[in-house]
Amino acid sequence: METKVTPYLAVKGAAEALVFYQKAFGAKVAGQMSDEQGRIGHAEIQIGEARIYLADEHPEIGFISPTSLGGSAVMIEMTVPDVDALMERAVEAGATVARPAADQDYGWRNGKLLDPFGHTWMISSPI
Amino acid sequence: METKVTPYLAVKGAAEALVFYQKAFGAKVAGQMSDEQGRIGHAEIQIGEARIYLADEHPEIGFISPTSLGGSAVMIEMTVPDVDALMERAVEAGATVARPAADQDYGWRNGKLLDPFGHTWMISSPI
Repeated sequence: METKVTPYLAVKGAAEALVFYQKAFGAKVAGQMSDEQGRIGHAEIQIGEARIYLADEHPEIGFISPTSLGGSAVMIEMTVPDVDALMERAVEAGATVARPAADQDYGWRNGKLLDPFGHTWMISSPI
Repeated sequence: METKVTPYLAVKGAAEALVFYQKAFGAKVAGQMSDEQGRIGHAEIQIGEARIYLADEHPEIGFISPTSLGGSAVMIEMTVPDVDALMERAVEAGATVARPAADQDYGWRNGKLLDPFGHTWMISSPI
């Protein structure tokens, strides 16, 4: 089997985040499990070919959300068919534009979003 | 085109991280660019089918490493052919075991690594 990677987001308010990612990105919830404390222990969303994992933060095992840390050290680059349409939809759902969409000299159009849970997204499309 | 995601790691010491990821994970450096300040402005590594982006932290645009934040809010789940072999190789290269490899009741074997740059990796394989 070939090596693959999947980003696993720590979220304060994972249940709300699942609703947000559906509205903002058209994500489908592909699975969801609670832990003994009623927190979301694991959830999976699918956006096109992209699978993303998320769960409520679990500070006791060092799984801490951007809300608690004060930022995120991993941006999620999401390649989409239409940067502007997706950014508009995400902003309507509650995301903030960190950098507006613009054509880049390396042949991509991209912009940056901050979601309501503190995760950062670079929304990209080849020009 | 279908939607895809690529994790983009903020690193304090991205040049050293490129060396580490080659040793630890067998990554190939697929591209690397410096910015005006001599920092790595963008780099790409390939591990099997997985592409990962990284760059030196750029605090002026909110791109902050786990070293500076005190943790990471996005764990990278990496599915590999052999969990134990990869974890052993990564530890020899300087990673720390956050949770040793173990068989899980959901049919996967996995363990957690902390790399020298503060990024966390869940190394997984179906049993």
